[in-house]
Amino acid sequence: MESKEWSSGVWTHLTAVRRRSPLVQCITNLVSMDLVANTLLSAGASPAMVHSIAEVPDFTPHIHALCVNVGTLTPDWLPSMKAAAELASQLKKPWVLDPAAVSCSGFRLKACLELVELKPSVIKGNGSEIIALSSASRSHTKGADSSHESTEAIEAAKSLALSSGAVVAVSGAVDIVTDGKRVIGVHNGTKMMQKITATGCSLAGLVAAFLAVDPLQPLEATVSAMSVFGIAGELGEAMANGPASLRMHLIDSLYGLDETTVLNRVRITSLG
Amino acid sequence: MESKEWSSGVWTHLTAVRRRSPLVQCITNLVSMDLVANTLLSAGASPAMVHSIAEVPDFTPHIHALCVNVGTLTPDWLPSMKAAAELASQLKKPWVLDPAAVSCSGFRLKACLELVELKPSVIKGNGSEIIALSSASRSHTKGADSSHESTEAIEAAKSLALSSGAVVAVSGAVDIVTDGKRVIGVHNGTKMMQKITATGCSLAGLVAAFLAVDPLQPLEATVSAMSVFGIAGELGEAMANGPASLRMHLIDSLYGLDETTVLNRVRITSLG
Amino acid sequence: MESKEWSSGVWTHLTAVRRRSPLVQCITNLVSMDLVANTLLSAGASPAMVHSIAEVPDFTPHIHALCVNVGTLTPDWLPSMKAAAELASQLKKPWVLDPAAVSCSGFRLKACLELVELKPSVIKGNGSEIIALSSASRSHTKGADSSHESTEAIEAAKSLALSSGAVVAVSGAVDIVTDGKRVIGVHNGTKMMQKITATGCSLAGLVAAFLAVDPLQPLEATVSAMSVFGIAGELGEAMANGPASLRMHLIDSLYGLDETTVLNRVRITSLG
Repeated sequence: MESKEWSSGVWTHLTAVRRRSPLVQCITNLVSMDLVANTLLSAGASPAMVHSIAEVPDFTPHIHALCVNVGTLTPDWLPSMKAAAELASQLKKPWVLDPAAVSCSGFRLKACLELVELKPSVIKGNGSEIIALSSASRSHTKGADSSHESTEAIEAAKSLALSSGAVVAVSGAVDIVTDGKRVIGVHNGTKMMQKITATGCSLAGLVAAFLAVDPLQPLEATVSAMSVFGIAGELGEAMANGPASLRMHLIDSLYGLDETTVLNRVRITSLG
Repeated sequence: MESKEWSSGVWTHLTAVRRRSPLVQCITNLVSMDLVANTLLSAGASPAMVHSIAEVPDFTPHIHALCVNVGTLTPDWLPSMKAAAELASQLKKPWVLDPAAVSCSGFRLKACLELVELKPSVIKGNGSEIIALSSASRSHTKGADSSHESTEAIEAAKSLALSSGAVVAVSGAVDIVTDGKRVIGVHNGTKMMQKITATGCSLAGLVAAFLAVDPLQPLEATVSAMSVFGIAGELGEAMANGPASLRMHLIDSLYGLDETTVLNRVRITSLG
Repeated sequence: MESKEWSSGVWTHLTAVRRRSPLVQCITNLVSMDLVANTLLSAGASPAMVHSIAEVPDFTPHIHALCVNVGTLTPDWLPSMKAAAELASQLKKPWVLDPAAVSCSGFRLKACLELVELKPSVIKGNGSEIIALSSASRSHTKGADSSHESTEAIEAAKSLALSSGAVVAVSGAVDIVTDGKRVIGVHNGTKMMQKITATGCSLAGLVAAFLAVDPLQPLEATVSAMSVFGIAGELGEAMANGPASLRMHLIDSLYGLDETTVLNRVRITSLG
């Protein structure tokens, strides 16, 4: 695909989110709820932080996409994540798994592997998380650390995509998105975004919103969401004096993004 | 009541909150805790996010008002909401119910109906929420959607006020406050506030703070809180570039509100 | 110690945090998670909001410091706080107890006393909290209110330090830090910081990060963290129009602090 086509695809996706305001259920961690909700609102989507298993049967059938993030997982939250994911899969609604800090405990790794079984449309993590999850999915016991992380992350992502059937997105200096065959690089974003908590979680929520408006093309929708979020970060950083003002300007910029800016700033390439 | 009297009433209420710094217990949702607490602090009140049923018997007797919001309700949180509400009612302390997203599940609707039974001083929601709760209170099964929502919301609010004994506040382009007989319109605020998560929850907390300083006039206190919050939003929007900077400027403006600004900007009318 | 030595010590500590990026586990309250995480990130540390008891055995051995805050304590959170604190103590990792609102219930007071038994390196609270906890530790039943709070707080802090073996830090107009013998005053900070929710919790997290890089000198590390946070607040207030912009500028300032500013602004004195 030509770079120009990617750019117009990104704009088309963002416009669709703004017009259709998809309802995105987020079962996310306690740290990120505020920023995830504000990210979705500023992108034009409609966030719903509904995490009670008592509400999943009534509520999840009405959503357009689901985002599950295990950042502050406890045993009592896992059943509702699984119930919502299972229902979303059954009803052919796209859903995103963010295996945040997957290797911080055996409990969390096991939970993520069980969630992967429930057929997420997209799995989004950083390099270490995707390598750990991919490795565990292959029943390997290799650690998450790597001195060649970016290359290794691509291979891990492709492997995880093929074994799970999900599109796999790896955030980093260059974001990588793969369906196991194609590998796309998104070169938008700025390093300081890592100094704001919950930006990764917010990106996962945004991916869900983009999937909602283009469920049959999860790779393209994911690439678009990552590019849009990165562009908002770039615009935000130009106005920021540090992480807290970057956070504010990022959300404002996401809200105000116009076509010319998007078309000029999208940096998407094929990596193989 | 004359418009000028409303204005001076608003300022009197705000001044009383700043001077007396009422202790407001908030059992609110996980998304909104930060903004609710900061809203109350910037208005001069003293927020206490105490939600454990283990603490209600010791703590709730010391509060000046209570705010209960069901935005991320789970079955384990409901008992403490009910215990705190019941104790507040027994001790004649004002309390506010925010039936956030009441129709998202049968579980939540039932919980809200049970909370209404515990005699909230004020029920505050948006049009859809008040229509759904009012309808359910009348044992109707009519849905929440309506093509004539603003008119219907007034009738639903009046009906709910009469059946529950609470003042009912409906946020919207024009906020509506009714005790079942009088209907007051508050014309302050700005549309972009809806693009910030938790502004509705924060308003509910602010209503509780205003009730604390004028518990015998819940309609007047509610009208004042809604006008103050709307004015802070108007001032904030004049400085904002998007939802995140609006959020910041709103809180700053609430903190800095002076008498002249309040008296000039209050827009309150009798709607019947 | 000379004032100049304190200043260079503060800068040394901050530089070490930035260079070593200690992993700080925070089991904190639901209101403060976002600001605590962002405070730690902007200081150069690596926050981990891991609170599940299912994860403590796997995760806590890898941390460099722990922060426990009881601000929204419920009975289901207490076991993981205790398990993490106990493990941290066993493994000689420094940990901070923030007995937020300790006197709001008998349940919370008892929980804090149990946590004190687990040998925190530092206990950080405001005057009322330290007085209440110190008093309860001596099996007194005297209330927390006092008309001579600042003097009384020093005596309470010294007493609590001696009985618990912890360094005790009291935030206030002048912050006080004592190991039971030495008493140090930190004169940085600004009053408006009290109008932002979770600044106290964030300071406790920052103390944990500073302990992580100087675990054998908990008094010095605590003094440095309090001074750094106060200086960031002073710089933030110079740019702020109210509490919300102060919050943003405080985090930005913490991120950008340079040596000259730190050396010029540190205000630390010996109080006895």
